Amino acid sequence: MADPVRIGLLGRGTVGGAFAALLAERADAVEAATGRRPELAGTLSRSEGDFGEILARSDLIVELIGGTDPARTYVLEALRAGRPVVTANKQLLAQHGEELFAAAREAGVQLRFEAAVAGVIPIVRTIQESFGVTEIDKVFGIVNGTTNFILTEMASSGAAYADVLARAQELGYAEADPSDDVNGADAAAKMAILARLAFHTPVTLDQVPYEGIERVTPDDLAYAKELGLSLKLLGVAERRDGGISVRVFPCFLYSGHPLAPVGGPFNAVMVEAPAITEVTMSGPGAGGVETASAVLGDVVSILAGETPVHETREELPMVADVSSSFYLHLEVADEPGVLARIAQVLGDHEISVKSVVQRGIGDDARLVMVVHECLESSFAAALAEIAELDEMRAAPRSIRVIEEQFV
Amino acid sequence: MADPVRIGLLGRGTVGGAFAALLAERADAVEAATGRRPELAGTLSRSEGDFGEILARSDLIVELIGGTDPARTYVLEALRAGRPVVTANKQLLAQHGEELFAAAREAGVQLRFEAAVAGVIPIVRTIQESFGVTEIDKVFGIVNGTTNFILTEMASSGAAYADVLARAQELGYAEADPSDDVNGADAAAKMAILARLAFHTPVTLDQVPYEGIERVTPDDLAYAKELGLSLKLLGVAERRDGGISVRVFPCFLYSGHPLAPVGGPFNAVMVEAPAITEVTMSGPGAGGVETASAVLGDVVSILAGETPVHETREELPMVADVSSSFYLHLEVADEPGVLARIAQVLGDHEISVKSVVQRGIGDDARLVMVVHECLESSFAAALAEIAELDEMRAAPRSIRVIEEQFV
Repeated sequence: MADPVRIGLLGRGTVGGAFAALLAERADAVEAATGRRPELAGTLSRSEGDFGEILARSDLIVELIGGTDPARTYVLEALRAGRPVVTANKQLLAQHGEELFAAAREAGVQLRFEAAVAGVIPIVRTIQESFGVTEIDKVFGIVNGTTNFILTEMASSGAAYADVLARAQELGYAEADPSDDVNGADAAAKMAILARLAFHTPVTLDQVPYEGIERVTPDDLAYAKELGLSLKLLGVAERRDGGISVRVFPCFLYSGHPLAPVGGPFNAVMVEAPAITEVTMSGPGAGGVETASAVLGDVVSILAGETPVHETREELPMVADVSSSFYLHLEVADEPGVLARIAQVLGDHEISVKSVVQRGIGDDARLVMVVHECLESSFAAALAEIAELDEMRAAPRSIRVIEEQFV
Repeated sequence: MADPVRIGLLGRGTVGGAFAALLAERADAVEAATGRRPELAGTLSRSEGDFGEILARSDLIVELIGGTDPARTYVLEALRAGRPVVTANKQLLAQHGEELFAAAREAGVQLRFEAAVAGVIPIVRTIQESFGVTEIDKVFGIVNGTTNFILTEMASSGAAYADVLARAQELGYAEADPSDDVNGADAAAKMAILARLAFHTPVTLDQVPYEGIERVTPDDLAYAKELGLSLKLLGVAERRDGGISVRVFPCFLYSGHPLAPVGGPFNAVMVEAPAITEVTMSGPGAGGVETASAVLGDVVSILAGETPVHETREELPMVADVSSSFYLHLEVADEPGVLARIAQVLGDHEISVKSVVQRGIGDDARLVMVVHECLESSFAAALAEIAELDEMRAAPRSIRVIEEQFV
């Protein structure tokens, strides 16, 4: 068996802790996918651990300290010592990306950073790998979950910015000092990274003008609603006039826009190019386990090298009879007691009705029902009985329904 | 300089032709990204070329013939000869995936197939690589563009299935023989592939029950609209009761569901797992250049090996003054001529007004306008002039607007 891979973890905050837990939980899966079992070689926190010692006994470094110092020094040292590095540090990449990329190239090791932008949405990998030779015109989207949560709440409640911010802080969607989120600086760092990847040209944070959402009023949102618009803090990186433009600003979108329905703390990014038309990706923009999950994906990519090997990890049985909710369309004689008889059959099979619409059509009536989730075999049995009722004027028709409600 | 990489192309249909053209167009970018320049070593079509000869002079095989025979034989031979293979062939993978994966593992070469599922949406890479060690609960979505186009049109026009299908055929969204699309078989093949990747267990097409959309009536869609539902052909692969369930069926979704707004020929796939919550990806599901683009992404991944190298490919200038559309919020004295004066200032700067809402508030009025796209410098200059007008009661406020209309 191959030696385990020893991971040096820098940082033991929310994400660091979540990563350590996830790594332990998924160690078997990592071994199945890569042939090597991961183990923590050491953890550096403010109070514990020595970077040099951890580096010496690690095969790979995961940097989750945040900020530029001492993260920059550690990452450079690790790369120069021939260790691949995974980081979630957007400030570090947006300010010192070129220096780090050069160090990685010189050492011939990988530097991966999916978690630095848009949390668990695999936008870094997609732009680098899937669209690595695509002539991208534009990358834009909602890359800050705090501001999207605030704007979504302001629009739905009509409350003022300061009140909603306080609520976001209570719920953990905004930090005690929310400045970098609400003023657009956090989004600007992410857009600098995405622009660098999309356009293969150096872009640093100080080249990205940004505006935040602090001055948005309930009034703006009320008028916007009248005009059919919704407000988002957008990051945009695009080719313009032979150069590029990278910016962050609050912006109204028409309701048909793919980013308009993205609400709450979610992020979403769109990529436009002639060869792909447009691709949109959305998901949670932050969260300890989600960010840790993106970090682990990078670790696995480094360990796996080039190979998706498609090993069978387990043999799972196919389950034939699952449960679903159904829409049911019945043409029946317009006589008293029909609905009762149909409801009786459904009840006999323990199927409960969620909604009914009944309409007369001449001597007949059309009954349209939605029933709650039930075993498909129960529904099929009920349907067969219903089809045999004398009052039926046509074969019953049914279509499944997903009842799950999303925000 | 490194030797060029010689690509053997099997198939010269719509996608094959688009791939050959895209490869030529992006050859410089491929070389910049991978260090190796791609060139076509030969093309096999029904009337021309010999597979053995093409294989002998190729470093990598791209299979775009479709169908299982002779594609299966060619892909197996190529893998056994040590050539990495990229294919867009969903039938081949859904029916003979395990045999192909085993051949690739034994030969130690890659088999990639992003284009086989959901066109240019990087769902295969995302599941295999980003979420390769994630405990995925569910992968589901709209993986057939033909049926989504038909259902979208039926819902918006109220027309019957047969009429809309004929229209889809005219527009090129449905084939002359649309059976495999409309009966769900195409989607079933794609779901077999996604289930195999998500759950690391063998899944073949014959294990996937499917229903199509042929029996959907305008009536169903009309009642659904009343109930707030929209109809999609869904593919679902999920863990259930210690096993998995993989199915394709028409299904109603409530309006808040992330897949509900996905219209026309677009595809969208959602992945759910505890560690990622949910990620949704959408984009064009087919199209010659889009599919070719996904194939090229796979080719580049094989050539690049493990390395995103972050070379600077060009030095692009940052463009400072771009154009935007704006929302403008003004509190003004409620006097005759105010709107005219403001419109005059905007006109002087060649800014045209798209919409205006004016409302009295006591002695004052609130003017909310949206102006068409203009240079940001022009808008800033106009805004500065407007701020100086005697009639202004507060500082003007503005927010950008994306005017772009989506379907």
